[in-house]
Amino acid sequence: MFRNSYDNDSITYSPTGRLFQVEYALEAIKQGSASVGLVSKTHVVIVALKRNAEELGSYQKKIIRIDNHLGIALAGLAPDARVLSNFMRQQAMTSKMVYNKPIPVARVAHEIGDKAQKNTQTYGRRPYGVGLLVAGYDETGPHLFEFLPSGTVLEYFGAAIGARSQSARTYLERNFESFPDCTAEELVLHGLRALRDTLAQDKELLIQNTSIGLVGLDTPFKLYDNEDVGEWLEKLGDVGSSRGRRQAEEAEAEAAAAAETSAPADEDIPVPDVPAEPIETDD
Amino acid sequence: MFRNSYDNDSITYSPTGRLFQVEYALEAIKQGSASVGLVSKTHVVIVALKRNAEELGSYQKKIIRIDNHLGIALAGLAPDARVLSNFMRQQAMTSKMVYNKPIPVARVAHEIGDKAQKNTQTYGRRPYGVGLLVAGYDETGPHLFEFLPSGTVLEYFGAAIGARSQSARTYLERNFESFPDCTAEELVLHGLRALRDTLAQDKELLIQNTSIGLVGLDTPFKLYDNEDVGEWLEKLGDVGSSRGRRQAEEAEAEAAAAAETSAPADEDIPVPDVPAEPIETDD
Amino acid sequence: MFRNSYDNDSITYSPTGRLFQVEYALEAIKQGSASVGLVSKTHVVIVALKRNAEELGSYQKKIIRIDNHLGIALAGLAPDARVLSNFMRQQAMTSKMVYNKPIPVARVAHEIGDKAQKNTQTYGRRPYGVGLLVAGYDETGPHLFEFLPSGTVLEYFGAAIGARSQSARTYLERNFESFPDCTAEELVLHGLRALRDTLAQDKELLIQNTSIGLVGLDTPFKLYDNEDVGEWLEKLGDVGSSRGRRQAEEAEAEAAAAAETSAPADEDIPVPDVPAEPIETDD
Amino acid sequence: MFRNSYDNDSITYSPTGRLFQVEYALEAIKQGSASVGLVSKTHVVIVALKRNAEELGSYQKKIIRIDNHLGIALAGLAPDARVLSNFMRQQAMTSKMVYNKPIPVARVAHEIGDKAQKNTQTYGRRPYGVGLLVAGYDETGPHLFEFLPSGTVLEYFGAAIGARSQSARTYLERNFESFPDCTAEELVLHGLRALRDTLAQDKELLIQNTSIGLVGLDTPFKLYDNEDVGEWLEKLGDVGSSRGRRQAEEAEAEAAAAAETSAPADEDIPVPDVPAEPIETDD
Amino acid sequence: MFRNSYDNDSITYSPTGRLFQVEYALEAIKQGSASVGLVSKTHVVIVALKRNAEELGSYQKKIIRIDNHLGIALAGLAPDARVLSNFMRQQAMTSKMVYNKPIPVARVAHEIGDKAQKNTQTYGRRPYGVGLLVAGYDETGPHLFEFLPSGTVLEYFGAAIGARSQSARTYLERNFESFPDCTAEELVLHGLRALRDTLAQDKELLIQNTSIGLVGLDTPFKLYDNEDVGEWLEKLGDVGSSRGRRQAEEAEAEAAAAAETSAPADEDIPVPDVPAEPIETDD
Amino acid sequence: MFRNSYDNDSITYSPTGRLFQVEYALEAIKQGSASVGLVSKTHVVIVALKRNAEELGSYQKKIIRIDNHLGIALAGLAPDARVLSNFMRQQAMTSKMVYNKPIPVARVAHEIGDKAQKNTQTYGRRPYGVGLLVAGYDETGPHLFEFLPSGTVLEYFGAAIGARSQSARTYLERNFESFPDCTAEELVLHGLRALRDTLAQDKELLIQNTSIGLVGLDTPFKLYDNEDVGEWLEKLGDVGSSRGRRQAEEAEAEAAAAAETSAPADEDIPVPDVPAEPIETDD
Amino acid sequence: MFRNSYDNDSITYSPTGRLFQVEYALEAIKQGSASVGLVSKTHVVIVALKRNAEELGSYQKKIIRIDNHLGIALAGLAPDARVLSNFMRQQAMTSKMVYNKPIPVARVAHEIGDKAQKNTQTYGRRPYGVGLLVAGYDETGPHLFEFLPSGTVLEYFGAAIGARSQSARTYLERNFESFPDCTAEELVLHGLRALRDTLAQDKELLIQNTSIGLVGLDTPFKLYDNEDVGEWLEKLGDVGSSRGRRQAEEAEAEAAAAAETSAPADEDIPVPDVPAEPIETDD
Repeated sequence: MFRNSYDNDSITYSPTGRLFQVEYALEAIKQGSASVGLVSKTHVVIVALKRNAEELGSYQKKIIRIDNHLGIALAGLAPDARVLSNFMRQQAMTSKMVYNKPIPVARVAHEIGDKAQKNTQTYGRRPYGVGLLVAGYDETGPHLFEFLPSGTVLEYFGAAIGARSQSARTYLERNFESFPDCTAEELVLHGLRALRDTLAQDKELLIQNTSIGLVGLDTPFKLYDNEDVGEWLEKLGDVGSSRGRRQAEEAEAEAAAAAETSAPADEDIPVPDVPAEPIETDD
Repeated sequence: MFRNSYDNDSITYSPTGRLFQVEYALEAIKQGSASVGLVSKTHVVIVALKRNAEELGSYQKKIIRIDNHLGIALAGLAPDARVLSNFMRQQAMTSKMVYNKPIPVARVAHEIGDKAQKNTQTYGRRPYGVGLLVAGYDETGPHLFEFLPSGTVLEYFGAAIGARSQSARTYLERNFESFPDCTAEELVLHGLRALRDTLAQDKELLIQNTSIGLVGLDTPFKLYDNEDVGEWLEKLGDVGSSRGRRQAEEAEAEAAAAAETSAPADEDIPVPDVPAEPIETDD
Repeated sequence: MFRNSYDNDSITYSPTGRLFQVEYALEAIKQGSASVGLVSKTHVVIVALKRNAEELGSYQKKIIRIDNHLGIALAGLAPDARVLSNFMRQQAMTSKMVYNKPIPVARVAHEIGDKAQKNTQTYGRRPYGVGLLVAGYDETGPHLFEFLPSGTVLEYFGAAIGARSQSARTYLERNFESFPDCTAEELVLHGLRALRDTLAQDKELLIQNTSIGLVGLDTPFKLYDNEDVGEWLEKLGDVGSSRGRRQAEEAEAEAAAAAETSAPADEDIPVPDVPAEPIETDD
Repeated sequence: MFRNSYDNDSITYSPTGRLFQVEYALEAIKQGSASVGLVSKTHVVIVALKRNAEELGSYQKKIIRIDNHLGIALAGLAPDARVLSNFMRQQAMTSKMVYNKPIPVARVAHEIGDKAQKNTQTYGRRPYGVGLLVAGYDETGPHLFEFLPSGTVLEYFGAAIGARSQSARTYLERNFESFPDCTAEELVLHGLRALRDTLAQDKELLIQNTSIGLVGLDTPFKLYDNEDVGEWLEKLGDVGSSRGRRQAEEAEAEAAAAAETSAPADEDIPVPDVPAEPIETDD
Repeated sequence: MFRNSYDNDSITYSPTGRLFQVEYALEAIKQGSASVGLVSKTHVVIVALKRNAEELGSYQKKIIRIDNHLGIALAGLAPDARVLSNFMRQQAMTSKMVYNKPIPVARVAHEIGDKAQKNTQTYGRRPYGVGLLVAGYDETGPHLFEFLPSGTVLEYFGAAIGARSQSARTYLERNFESFPDCTAEELVLHGLRALRDTLAQDKELLIQNTSIGLVGLDTPFKLYDNEDVGEWLEKLGDVGSSRGRRQAEEAEAEAAAAAETSAPADEDIPVPDVPAEPIETDD
Repeated sequence: MFRNSYDNDSITYSPTGRLFQVEYALEAIKQGSASVGLVSKTHVVIVALKRNAEELGSYQKKIIRIDNHLGIALAGLAPDARVLSNFMRQQAMTSKMVYNKPIPVARVAHEIGDKAQKNTQTYGRRPYGVGLLVAGYDETGPHLFEFLPSGTVLEYFGAAIGARSQSARTYLERNFESFPDCTAEELVLHGLRALRDTLAQDKELLIQNTSIGLVGLDTPFKLYDNEDVGEWLEKLGDVGSSRGRRQAEEAEAEAAAAAETSAPADEDIPVPDVPAEPIETDD
Repeated sequence: MFRNSYDNDSITYSPTGRLFQVEYALEAIKQGSASVGLVSKTHVVIVALKRNAEELGSYQKKIIRIDNHLGIALAGLAPDARVLSNFMRQQAMTSKMVYNKPIPVARVAHEIGDKAQKNTQTYGRRPYGVGLLVAGYDETGPHLFEFLPSGTVLEYFGAAIGARSQSARTYLERNFESFPDCTAEELVLHGLRALRDTLAQDKELLIQNTSIGLVGLDTPFKLYDNEDVGEWLEKLGDVGSSRGRRQAEEAEAEAAAAAETSAPADEDIPVPDVPAEPIETDD
């Protein structure tokens, strides 16, 4: 009875012109651990928090290399990301074979955007349940794109997706003016600090749960995982997270707590019509 | 129980002959920021307000160049606009290759209209969620077309779509008699004034949030973004918005406020059968 | 609960053998402004009322030229009419290329009828939401056909579709005996008078809102729009509308007022089983 | 709640083995004006009542010539009949081209029967909403077949379909023993008398509302419409309708009146399980 | 609310493993008039009761010749039987052309069985609504098969389908031990007596309502209709129906009466889970 | 309201991970009469109970020969079994033609298993409603496989499916240790005794209702039906069924009685979530 | 009324971004008996518990050999696992034919992951209902992957799936630090101990219910079943299960007991929104 009547599929508009299934897909991103990206004049960095399913398993892959000049960080449904990364690899390979040059970052980003848009306009498919940060370096320099299930693809100086990513964004907003002139090393450390701000209070960045991707001028895409991450964490030192983190975290934590408590009920009560951020209809 | 029974898809008529899903798609346009277009005897101008998703991101693209003589401004779902602009580019390229001349503006506008109409008559697709202002200059002079998800394509002297666009229309209606003889510069300034009237009270036109597209006699399509917009804003000067703006804005603001307040509830209560403007059935 | 259970799609009969979705499509015609057609021994005339969406826009196209000997007037969903007119143009072109003669008016009219019938018998499409008056002159003389979304195609001496079209029909019924021997000019004036009777009390026929199409013996299809309409309106003079108009208008106005008032409610209450005119099952 | 649960489509049986959608399609026939057919040893006659939509229009076509030896009369949805007649014409043409002889009447009748049966056994189509009387003369003599949307095709000596057709059947039953030896003229007059019995009390057979089709030995199919009907009506004279007519008419009128009164309610109440004549399951 | 939830289509099992739509299709057979078949060592006979739709029409075809050695009797939806008989004829023709011999009776019976089974396992089709008695004579002698919409095909010594067929079965069961050694004539008379037992009390076997099919050793399939039936009815004489008939008839009549009375209500009340004979799951 | 919400089709899991439609298909097996299979070191035997639809008909086929080394016994929907046996025959023929050797028993069993699995994972089909015992002898000796609609295929020493099959299983479990060294004759007798235990109290194994299939070393598949069964029944003698039978039977009878009584209601009340044996998820 | 509205299919998100049908598919795994896998520097071991359907049948296959260097253990729907293993075998064969080398373990694991992801994003299919442990040895050493219906594929040092697998995981977590340096024999024994911890209290590992798969350096994939398992069980000795087992078991047993008791009700009550482990959205 209380059911939202317009959220069955992604091809039905609500009377106010919204596509709820697409918005719900965006919620799936928030259930993945955070990924952060940022750009200087010469490099792009993506860092991500790996969630350890169990002690017995390797941590999950959060950063995936696509090509020599290109990589992605993800938040949301990992199998969907794998499918999209396979597609990107094919596009990159085709570009090399047909045009004899690496695929431009903007083009590959828009190609997954168009692929995703189709899933929001055709009955019988579902929007992808994953957000991506696409980091690459091409003839026009370093680029960072955020990809969303709606098909939205936007370029950013700094971006963060996934759980508690607002804390990372707060850090980025305070410091992004210094990014353009950062060295690759400084850029990585900024990224790690932003990522650290997304951690719960009793968690720390560890070589097991941190992934770093770096690409830029004269720097082929390099993925730092496990032991390789160690040197970066040492450089980061032991400085606590910024004050902004605490505040944002607390607010988010409260919201999350509320959400988790009410989740079972959520299914059958009216869908709140005021999501934190209207995502789809901006343009 | 209170659900509108005829708004599940775009292929079902209500007893009064309306297609609600198509009308809901038009609502998606109103959730995008405004775009304005106007025509003189020699030029067409489109100006648009970019919404900044976050400080960290570049502003979103609101004006897209299609060809040397053709560009569009959009309001609504950006991924849908990207798909349509890709289609227009293909049509333009085909015209050049096959007929060895730029595609006529009216033809490309009607081609996206026909493409959109199919989505309103076939089960399993959804109407596009975006409105476009198509601006171009061809053998028959400058043209401005408004494209809507219903497939409606109409030529205008001046047009405005998106949030608070009524304020811009009010400005255009007061001044359109002077447009035909405007110089390109005067036309741009008229466009910016109309666009300014769509701003909320505490907002101003800035180089970051304003896009300008100009095309006409001896003037290939030129897109002014960011710094390039500066000179135009200087020419615009600091004159406040017209009185008409205030009034229309207030009325709209009230309506918007009411809408936002009642939005969550809207989903499950009867769809009001009296939209502000009946769009579909005019002919 | 009160919902009509048999009006979901055009392939489900009600227990009384009716196809409600097809009937609802006919309602979409009534929401368009009126079009009128009439025939003499030598000519056919179609006249139509253009609705001005806004002051800023050109008036909408109500009469469309198909071929040298053929044109249509429409009422209802304009994008649907555009699709049908494209189809008619293709048919006309094929006839010239294959048979080396203009397409017979009856044939092209029945071809769109058959095309429309398919949409009433196949799941996943919707009946067209537009009515057409097809006017043409061929080897067998002048012809006027009315096309309806049900696929019904009938020849008329005089016909009127769209809003308040009953008033026009009343005029035609009173005067149709004089049509056969009318000159082209007299026929146009009869058409304009019938059209004028569909106007609301505070409206007049103007060069901006009136379209005229004329075709006949030694008269290729000619479309009078804007300034070209001026000479006809002068000939029409200032004579008020006929008495019959007032009466019909009042009755219709009351009905329309009632309809508009109750429209929002209409959606969820039983569909009245007694439409003004049973359209589908006549034969 | 009261809705009949087994009448959504023509591929679902009710617990008693009935196909309601097919039965509802038969109701559409009853909403068309009557057609009557009858056979002598040498000729077949079909006569039909044309309903005049408006004074302005030509009367609707009720009898359609298919081939030199073949024609049909219809009752129900005219566009469906047009589609079926197109199909019959193709079959007839094929027969001439491939077998070099006119298509046998029984074969063409069964071919539309098979075509119609498919629509009752496949999801996503709807049964035709029209009944036909197929009249033709071939090597085996004159034949009259009745085609129904269920795909049922039966040969008759005399048959009547459409509104108030029971009155015509009553006439035919009283007189059919004399048909075999009738001349063509006598047969036409019998047909007209039967047709006249289906008229409402204040209606008469007129040249405008009567169609006659005649085919037989040495008599190619001839359609009498408008003026051509005049001589037949003169021969018919002014004799009132038979007594049987009055009685049947009254009974039917009562039923019809009841039906019309309760029609709006019919939609949401249980479908009465006792139609006047069980049509489908006879064999 | 009381609706059986598992009888929407033939691809959904009830919790007890039943396919209700298939069972409902079997009910359609019971609404046709009876057909009876029986076998001797040398011949097969099928007899059937034709229902006269009206005095004016020829009686309906109940027995159809398929090939020189093969024929069917039907009960249920005649158009479905026509489609199946067309299919059988094609199979028979193919056999002659490819294998140069008449199609074995068992094979053609199983081929329609397989065809019917597909309709019970694929969404979007409906099970055939007709039962057939397939009678033929091939290298292995005379055969009688009963075909049901479920795809069940079983060989019988004697069988009866359609309305009141239980009375015929009672007759057959009492007499079948004498069948093997019957002459063709005796076999036909047994069949007619069984058929007579299915008649309502005020009905008699007449040349108009009786069809007889006979095939066997040195006896190509012969269909006796109308006058040809006369000699058989004379041989049958005037002996009343057997006592068993009365009893079975009375029981059935009561059941039927009950059914007819409660039919309209049946639609919306729980489907009784105890059909007279569980048909599907026997094997 | 009480309806199980997850049993509409075989592609929807319940919250506990069950596929109810697949489980319901298994119920269809229980409505067929019993089939029993058992294996020695050299032979496989399948025996089955034929249900006589009527005295007039031949008993139904319960054992079907597939190839010289292969046969099946079935319980459930006979038409489904026929389709599967046709498929097995094609596979067997292909094996002979392509590999020049009889198809291995395990392979053909798994091929129908894979075919059946598809029907449990694709929308618009239904799981087969039949269980099979596949008995064959190949290079690796005698084999007995049980096939279920879920696609489950397991090898057994002894197996029983269909109504009251638990009684047969009880017999098999008590005696299976002696099977390996049985002669073919002893194996058949064991099978008959197990089958006899599934009979209702007032029933006996007769030549009319018993089928026997035997295949093994130097023993091509042989089917004993009707008279051929006689010698086996004589060897079986008159010994009553084992004590275990009585007990199992009584328990089952009670359950069955309960089921039959409550069956009509079952449709609309909650599906009991505790089937006798969880079948699907074992592995 | 209490029904979860977003769990009809795997292409609909809940408002919190979850795909319930995919989560339900994961529940199907828990209904299978446990499988355990673990890795040393040189070998991979998979062990599994076979559930005996009946005494008469062979135990079910829980470990399947795919190639010389590759095997899988499964928990959940066995037919689904068979389909996936067929697919893996084809992939392995293709690799050998095309690349002339054994397929890398990671690649084949991701290929079934991609295959499974498709079933979660396309309407009309269902997610696989089975989990797999993929064990193989290739150029990069021994690997153990866990495959889930969501398409998630993760590499593990030790893993356990199926009923009571938490107890096995507890064992693995306590001992995994010693795995890398284990000999193959030690690794198998660790696996058996972990598997033993999943047994109910009154059950023991037996040669009938235990399967072992071993592959590694110089060790082609070897499957130990039945008698072959004996030597391993002897080596395992009679030591009881670890203390951790008892505790975990008790907790799980209670949960299971509760689940079984409430299962019938579960279907129609709100789905609890807090599954033990959020599986899908980790990445």
